[in-house]
Amino acid sequence: MYSYSYLFDFTSHLLQKMGFTEDDSAQCARVFLAAEMRGISTHGVIRLADYFKLWEAGRINVTPNIHIVHESPSTAVIDGDDTIGMLPAFKAMNVAIAKARTVGTGWVAVRNSSNLGIAGYYAMMALEHDMIGFACTNASPLVAPTFSAAPMLGTNPIAVAIPAGQQPPFVADFATTPVTRGKFTVAAKKGEKIAFGYAQDAAGHPTDDPTAIERGGSMLPLGGDREHGSHKGYCLGAIVDILAAVLSGANFGPFVPPMMSYLPLLEQKSGEGWGHFFGAMRVDAFMSATEFKTRMDKWIETMRSARPAEGHDRVLIPGDPERENEERIAHEGISLLPQVVADLEMIAQKTGIRFEAKL
Amino acid sequence: MYSYSYLFDFTSHLLQKMGFTEDDSAQCARVFLAAEMRGISTHGVIRLADYFKLWEAGRINVTPNIHIVHESPSTAVIDGDDTIGMLPAFKAMNVAIAKARTVGTGWVAVRNSSNLGIAGYYAMMALEHDMIGFACTNASPLVAPTFSAAPMLGTNPIAVAIPAGQQPPFVADFATTPVTRGKFTVAAKKGEKIAFGYAQDAAGHPTDDPTAIERGGSMLPLGGDREHGSHKGYCLGAIVDILAAVLSGANFGPFVPPMMSYLPLLEQKSGEGWGHFFGAMRVDAFMSATEFKTRMDKWIETMRSARPAEGHDRVLIPGDPERENEERIAHEGISLLPQVVADLEMIAQKTGIRFEAKL
Repeated sequence: MYSYSYLFDFTSHLLQKMGFTEDDSAQCARVFLAAEMRGISTHGVIRLADYFKLWEAGRINVTPNIHIVHESPSTAVIDGDDTIGMLPAFKAMNVAIAKARTVGTGWVAVRNSSNLGIAGYYAMMALEHDMIGFACTNASPLVAPTFSAAPMLGTNPIAVAIPAGQQPPFVADFATTPVTRGKFTVAAKKGEKIAFGYAQDAAGHPTDDPTAIERGGSMLPLGGDREHGSHKGYCLGAIVDILAAVLSGANFGPFVPPMMSYLPLLEQKSGEGWGHFFGAMRVDAFMSATEFKTRMDKWIETMRSARPAEGHDRVLIPGDPERENEERIAHEGISLLPQVVADLEMIAQKTGIRFEAKL
Repeated sequence: MYSYSYLFDFTSHLLQKMGFTEDDSAQCARVFLAAEMRGISTHGVIRLADYFKLWEAGRINVTPNIHIVHESPSTAVIDGDDTIGMLPAFKAMNVAIAKARTVGTGWVAVRNSSNLGIAGYYAMMALEHDMIGFACTNASPLVAPTFSAAPMLGTNPIAVAIPAGQQPPFVADFATTPVTRGKFTVAAKKGEKIAFGYAQDAAGHPTDDPTAIERGGSMLPLGGDREHGSHKGYCLGAIVDILAAVLSGANFGPFVPPMMSYLPLLEQKSGEGWGHFFGAMRVDAFMSATEFKTRMDKWIETMRSARPAEGHDRVLIPGDPERENEERIAHEGISLLPQVVADLEMIAQKTGIRFEAKL
């Protein structure tokens, strides 16, 4: 088990070794560690090896000039200058919050970025300002539109954070697919099947094969099949792609570049890097923040006290599972898979940073 | 078969007989007929009988004072003064567009309203201004949160309209459930089962019984069950409910009042009437409208040319089916079910308007 501070320091030192400033390194480390603490370890330090290899391949700019290229009183477009996604994302959400403070809401599209970690981190930045936060991002193509056999969209997550009063905030943060791709990897390693409704084969037929993607298949949008509303999941993934990438000037759909150093950059581009989209709405641009938070408490209490289905003992509010993970992990520590520890030891050796295996 | 103008005139005259102004009546008629033309007849003139009976019961204000109660440069809250939903919705979207013209984006929450027809109508109002339009609304509780057995949320639709250049616009308009409740009614009338993943019984167990709701059951959120991401459909429905109702001062969740005159008003309230939420974003607050529309054309062409799954001949863009319906129905005319014709004949007789059965 690792403590927050141990992994925070390691991550931060590693990024400094790669050439990021101390401040930038600490900011990225906060996002990586937020994923660990919230129990979304698929976006935690497991990704450091990918970034490290991209850096070795010269595919990440560690001294970016992240700058606004277009703006209006309530909007902006930011160019991430081909750096690690956490930095333009953090800047963009801060710009959205500043604009919301002035004119009520702020909306910022980002281009020329890369993977930003967990979208929920940025949406939650709005909470302490009594604002509602939005964040979404496109990603490498894995998901087929309804009626298609080709991966054309990323798992394109959407995050929305809404402040409450006595109750903890409402925090939704979800991919626009039934599950994340990580579920496929785990099932494949265990020799298990995946549920139908997650993937299709190369011809577009439903499959329970967890290696479907490697065999030319694709993930399915939320809904799974047309009969169960996969066209709505496709709409959601498409809306994210358009706001994050068409509107920002980033690569959209199948043109989103891979984040793995062993995958070549694509020959065709439709913009620059990955795209994100952020928003902040000041609650008191609609009603007094006190009144809103009281109403939000009542909303949460109402849903929490809904009659549970047989076999369940309670109804959850979006954000509950992640917050419970935070409490548990703060107490127990962060556990890493042996493969992740091995990767971090390899990186430590290469960069001369200390990293201790604690399994 | 009926022509657009025949049903438009009938609807408009009926609403005038109920006491709405000529302008207001025509605006409502445009929304009812847009539903018919787009092939969403569940929100078309079939609903006139419900509104008529609500009016007979004194539950619709036909001379509303629809007014802004709170605003900032990019936001507003509008009180619908307990009238038919189409009127405050139309006003709110116009306010959103006007604010977007000034500061880049506009976001308007509405309270004290009722059913607004198809959400897509309002989102599409943004298109001619080279803006991206958003619209969503809450509705009477039918949908159970994941792990719950109780209907706590409406089918809470989301509509997003995005302008393109040579290509027709992207128009997504979908309930946050796998299907609409209308599918249940049709299956029940035919004596057929519904697919699993649409509904659960009163205890919260999956069911294929189309009368599940009448027997104390509920609809399931998009995703169907937890394994297939129903918690994400629950998040979507919840986000709509919070933006449309918590933020506007409307009734949320299980407190949304029924739109059927035979159902009594609820004893408990959490605000005023139904709630909606609208948004408009000026495309050129992000990049030149010409550049955006060229990029959007490429996005649409890219998705349209995705390799189809076996057994399908093409991949659709959100909005394609409704636009094809519009073209077909403009040519063929609007067909009404015998029960709808009978309802309209009954209303015609009561109000002294002419209505001819054309089956």
